[in-house]
Amino acid sequence: MKKHNFSAGPCILPPSVLQQASQALLNFDDLNLSLIEISHRSKNFVAVMDEAQNLAKELLNIPAGYSVLFLQGGASLQFVMAPFNLMKQEGGKAAYLNTGTWSTKAIKEAKRLGEVVEVASSKDRNFSYIPKGYSIPSDADFFHYTSNNTIFGTSVKATPQTNTLLVCDMSSDIFSREINVADFDLIYAGAQKNMGPAGATMVIVKDEILGKSGRDIPAYLDYQIHIDKDSMFNTPPVFSVYVSMLTLRWLKEKGGVAAIAKENEAKADLLYQEIDRNPLFEGTAAVEDRSFMNACFLPKEGANTDLFDEMWKAAGINGLNGHRSVGGYRASMYNALPIESVQVLVDVMQEFEERS
Amino acid sequence: MKKHNFSAGPCILPPSVLQQASQALLNFDDLNLSLIEISHRSKNFVAVMDEAQNLAKELLNIPAGYSVLFLQGGASLQFVMAPFNLMKQEGGKAAYLNTGTWSTKAIKEAKRLGEVVEVASSKDRNFSYIPKGYSIPSDADFFHYTSNNTIFGTSVKATPQTNTLLVCDMSSDIFSREINVADFDLIYAGAQKNMGPAGATMVIVKDEILGKSGRDIPAYLDYQIHIDKDSMFNTPPVFSVYVSMLTLRWLKEKGGVAAIAKENEAKADLLYQEIDRNPLFEGTAAVEDRSFMNACFLPKEGANTDLFDEMWKAAGINGLNGHRSVGGYRASMYNALPIESVQVLVDVMQEFEERS
Repeated sequence: MKKHNFSAGPCILPPSVLQQASQALLNFDDLNLSLIEISHRSKNFVAVMDEAQNLAKELLNIPAGYSVLFLQGGASLQFVMAPFNLMKQEGGKAAYLNTGTWSTKAIKEAKRLGEVVEVASSKDRNFSYIPKGYSIPSDADFFHYTSNNTIFGTSVKATPQTNTLLVCDMSSDIFSREINVADFDLIYAGAQKNMGPAGATMVIVKDEILGKSGRDIPAYLDYQIHIDKDSMFNTPPVFSVYVSMLTLRWLKEKGGVAAIAKENEAKADLLYQEIDRNPLFEGTAAVEDRSFMNACFLPKEGANTDLFDEMWKAAGINGLNGHRSVGGYRASMYNALPIESVQVLVDVMQEFEERS
Repeated sequence: MKKHNFSAGPCILPPSVLQQASQALLNFDDLNLSLIEISHRSKNFVAVMDEAQNLAKELLNIPAGYSVLFLQGGASLQFVMAPFNLMKQEGGKAAYLNTGTWSTKAIKEAKRLGEVVEVASSKDRNFSYIPKGYSIPSDADFFHYTSNNTIFGTSVKATPQTNTLLVCDMSSDIFSREINVADFDLIYAGAQKNMGPAGATMVIVKDEILGKSGRDIPAYLDYQIHIDKDSMFNTPPVFSVYVSMLTLRWLKEKGGVAAIAKENEAKADLLYQEIDRNPLFEGTAAVEDRSFMNACFLPKEGANTDLFDEMWKAAGINGLNGHRSVGGYRASMYNALPIESVQVLVDVMQEFEERS
């Protein structure tokens, strides 16, 4: 039975990518060797790493003066690396916007290294909206925010204006919408949403901002070292980089970020219209801050959730349970999810209304 | 044509493991979903993580009181994590044995955090032997060594005696020979030799040694946090953990570590006998310190290396070029390499002698 995969991440990937990855595990590049049993310094794998970096540059229109890295450790290690590289050893100060679980964790890590100003937080209403109208201290070493909050289903629609360095955790919406990389100094993203499997983290960093913190940075945590070694300072996560490269190739063939952004908008519109229309459900996020990637919704009082759960599972839908911090349901609609799957969910919601 | 894969890592894995991994990318556990597109918190993947940890415990006979973790960042991040967790903030001091490139890198990272005593080094003879008869300062927070030196083809045969904590980087020989885990306080190993693909790092840590450094440890670098979250503090490297689990299953079916150790000894004996016998080659490592995993050998003066290179490539041998730090040849004979492949190499060496 065909599955409709709404998992929040690790999540759906294009079937053609999975096919190619499956084949590469048996015989990569006609070498009669598996992708995962060749040297990462072989010309075959170096070509993969180069293509992954170049596709990222092309798809996001990354200007000169930025480096693209594929590292390990997820956003959680970036929570450590970003302040280690950018927050001054003497009198360091960073500004963070707190929009959810991941922002909160990022703030906790930065606090170990210096002063952190939380410019605003939406914790007062369970992170169901994006704070606005805050001010960023101009003497901060950088301002950090999370562009899309996977757990709470909110996203920051307008890039914040700041005269500090701008750092963004784009783990759950990179490559889903157009961005102007020149507005940012550091972007990082775990691969396991729109880019590939868990185990790789993409970093886009403006070269000129590095080397100014005055810190003695552990080698693995030092962006400059990874830049100098072209993401081969140590053995990279070969498989995750390869599948990310395949997924970026797929995205390019689909027409790139502008094309997928339109599809993502159409998918989100379809689902949010049903959430708003259906008397048995309500969305949890402020309408103007709704994420196009993760739609969170609750059953209204009295709705027969046992029936609904049975119905969506019977329809082949996977991964619809909400995160424990919000409850209810969460439909994650990453790049590889076809609009047909969203239609199946909408149909189930309508049928559920009829049967209730 | 069948390949004989002597790559130093990433390296050969059992064909049955590659087959299963390839299949799991298309349909895992009959879910009609790929292994890499399901939640890491799904019961299906939690079962994989549990089995990987339990197999490691069983195969290495790990006593109670130790935790097994699967992390990211390779040994390079462990070079940072080990001293962060074990070296005291106040007056911290660590002792390291320097047996090659990786030891040297580990020492460099520890020096950022406190005093490091290099108890001995074999750098004077290009790391071609293992120093002996050194003394370890009894007031060191821990003693660190590298059990197998992939690049230089040496290994430490006897576990060092010390009254300090004992830390070992076993990246290139874990699961290849029997060890007494109780002798160690911390063991770490990148997966990409005997365990699985690049992208996962196994850590075995004695629980009671943690929490005593007095340091404010960044979350991702804190072993205790990973223990508390059962290696799910953040999204683990799903694919690499899965393939590691499959490889450990394979090892168990082969009879476990004792059985594979015998095979590894037989493979190494076969090759070293030829290296010592063949007048056109010489081994680079001190005989008593020779690694069973990586055999390094040089052509003697006048040997026609162009012919030899042509011959081994024609025989389907892959990955025999030596590391640039040593030159010549390096045959890596990890667990999954059959003795038949070693015989093919020995045959080529003998035929080369005949044709020279």
